[in-house]
Amino acid sequence: MVLVRLKGFERLTDVDEALSIFLKALKLKRLSPVSVSIEEVLGRVTAKNITVPTNLPLFDRSAVDGYAVRAQDTFEASQFKPKILKLTITDSVGEGQAKQVWTGNPLPKGADAVIMLEHTRAMKGKVEVIAALTPSENVSKRGEDIRKGDVAVESGTRLQAHHVGLLAALDVSHVDVVENPQVAILSTGNELVELGKKSQPNQIIDSNRYIISGLVTELGAQPLNLGIARDNQDEIGAKISEGLAKADVVITTGGTSVGAPDLVPMVINKLGKPGVVVHGVALRPGMPTALAVLKGKPVFVLSGYPVAATIGFEVFARPIILKLLGIEHEPRPLLKAKLTRRVSGVLGRRVYLRVNVFKRDNDFFAEPVRTKGSGLLTTMTKANGYVIIPEDREGLEQGETVVGHLFAPIGGA
Amino acid sequence: MVLVRLKGFERLTDVDEALSIFLKALKLKRLSPVSVSIEEVLGRVTAKNITVPTNLPLFDRSAVDGYAVRAQDTFEASQFKPKILKLTITDSVGEGQAKQVWTGNPLPKGADAVIMLEHTRAMKGKVEVIAALTPSENVSKRGEDIRKGDVAVESGTRLQAHHVGLLAALDVSHVDVVENPQVAILSTGNELVELGKKSQPNQIIDSNRYIISGLVTELGAQPLNLGIARDNQDEIGAKISEGLAKADVVITTGGTSVGAPDLVPMVINKLGKPGVVVHGVALRPGMPTALAVLKGKPVFVLSGYPVAATIGFEVFARPIILKLLGIEHEPRPLLKAKLTRRVSGVLGRRVYLRVNVFKRDNDFFAEPVRTKGSGLLTTMTKANGYVIIPEDREGLEQGETVVGHLFAPIGGA
Repeated sequence: MVLVRLKGFERLTDVDEALSIFLKALKLKRLSPVSVSIEEVLGRVTAKNITVPTNLPLFDRSAVDGYAVRAQDTFEASQFKPKILKLTITDSVGEGQAKQVWTGNPLPKGADAVIMLEHTRAMKGKVEVIAALTPSENVSKRGEDIRKGDVAVESGTRLQAHHVGLLAALDVSHVDVVENPQVAILSTGNELVELGKKSQPNQIIDSNRYIISGLVTELGAQPLNLGIARDNQDEIGAKISEGLAKADVVITTGGTSVGAPDLVPMVINKLGKPGVVVHGVALRPGMPTALAVLKGKPVFVLSGYPVAATIGFEVFARPIILKLLGIEHEPRPLLKAKLTRRVSGVLGRRVYLRVNVFKRDNDFFAEPVRTKGSGLLTTMTKANGYVIIPEDREGLEQGETVVGHLFAPIGGA
Repeated sequence: MVLVRLKGFERLTDVDEALSIFLKALKLKRLSPVSVSIEEVLGRVTAKNITVPTNLPLFDRSAVDGYAVRAQDTFEASQFKPKILKLTITDSVGEGQAKQVWTGNPLPKGADAVIMLEHTRAMKGKVEVIAALTPSENVSKRGEDIRKGDVAVESGTRLQAHHVGLLAALDVSHVDVVENPQVAILSTGNELVELGKKSQPNQIIDSNRYIISGLVTELGAQPLNLGIARDNQDEIGAKISEGLAKADVVITTGGTSVGAPDLVPMVINKLGKPGVVVHGVALRPGMPTALAVLKGKPVFVLSGYPVAATIGFEVFARPIILKLLGIEHEPRPLLKAKLTRRVSGVLGRRVYLRVNVFKRDNDFFAEPVRTKGSGLLTTMTKANGYVIIPEDREGLEQGETVVGHLFAPIGGA
């Protein structure tokens, strides 16, 4: 068990332990299913296995444009020794016969293969075959793509273009998908103002709301804007309560450092049980992150620093929102790359190093983005991924092979 | 120059040559800019460089909760030999003084560093400092994140969460982004019916529209559904003309094979100049792809086979739609992986091999998806990426390191 402290972080909780404590306190279930038209289903997550109602194809059909034949009639045919078959227009193909078919046509009775148009020469009432076929050649067999009773798409799958195409081919018009998680986002801090409202030089525009909102949208969840709360217990408490009433998840930024305000975790603990279950994580950036549970819902108390808030989101909020969607594992694109220079870690902390991954001479490299502090938004816009420096490493060496986790496309040829 | 043939493909055009012929005939320009509120700008592409209107931060500010001091007053301070500074509540910090600040507060005049709260002990009217500071330590310097006049976001950038956050921090309320390309999609074929309308066993539900529509949406463009045209010149011609009137791009599937119908390229050549500029590409799957230009707009004539249509889209339509958006280079996530078994290629053809990439024991592997023909939708839903077998390779060896191009997340731990 871990000590929860509201002042100072004399003991930081390991990242994995923090997640495990949080999940135990949360008893997370994925959200309810909702039936959605196939026209609107792209990017949604399936709520159950989708079983195949019919064989696909439904019947043996031609896979090419050409002539349906009996394969044995073509044996030994070649350009120099063509076989001549008689054209038929009936529904079946007998010995020595051929029937013209187009791609997708049902295979006529008696035929067991299709000779491609390119391997034939048309003659009056006949066709010259210049290549030998094996039985079933150029035939899409009934159920070859997928069989009745098979699972077409598993539960917990984020539907991409081809899943939707497959479901359409199976005549599925509606799909049970998981409801989109609603994520309420609150920014706290006396210094914050809304975009366009800045009137004093020491005011800071609330950019965290845009970042968290964007990250939530990119996951396929729905952001709800709670606005800005000043550093005031009642205001913060009212906003968090509003978020809990409207949304499945609440995320706050700011008001979580060890400084005197430290208001958000304090307010949360007054709002209900169990409240804050982790505060202070062995993570850099993102150390002051707090994780809380109120009304059975996850509350993420992230740093006011954009980059620290992002890493807190990445490490804790992202997997939880995915679980609400029924997705157990959706890693960002990974790749191995060579680190271009030595970087320091911190023993006992998991460090998220922002890097720019690029390709050069058929090799991949990860260039650490130069940074000073977790406030610098540009360290995120200059990076396209991160590399994790584990707790037991003092740093990573130049030339070392690391795994990059990508959040943007890589450059290079 | 390449021979364009409407019947048979005695000469196939190389993929790179096809793209170059097409681009030359197209004279592509990116679409017009449109001003969009920052609330709606996620995923859109910038139409011009966005220059920084003000320094960020606007002034030197504290990067931590603590006390603003003169760094030299802390020199040699340690846990065992603390320095004692006098608290001030005025707007400036003199020699031997400290002023309490919270994260983001402007640095008071006279101070040049901030000691973290954790490295202090509060006393009545005084503060004990137990660590030494260097000048500028824990200070975010004016313009440190980004300087007035710098480019915050380059033209042609797809805006992600952090770009939006950075723009918000800079008080940018509207962004000039490129208009979303409108992509009209037509399916052709007598055998096709709309989902839910199947009444005969030899009818096939049009799934290609859903696939192409999904791929278009995933790129950030806007699909327009032209429905199904029967294998009839007038019907196909009318639909393509409708697409050209409404959209920036037209994509058709079906009616492009070497068989007698081969209608779509024929119709296109009747509709205007230059019409079809490439027909038949040294690509597998996707060989019968045709590329055409009408009214200066790109028309992609893709195979009726879902997988061949997908690869035709990937190779030709994707880069063109990206160019319309002003994006010159947006590779799919790449990674190096070991091929789990030998696969055959075709000399002289560029082969797109569907693979399932997974992670095992900290290594990445690419498992070719077993397939028979380009009609099998499930070879796409079972794959999460593709590997290119180049024209000059007869195949790829088991254990060979290949580059995977990912279109879905990878599995494994």
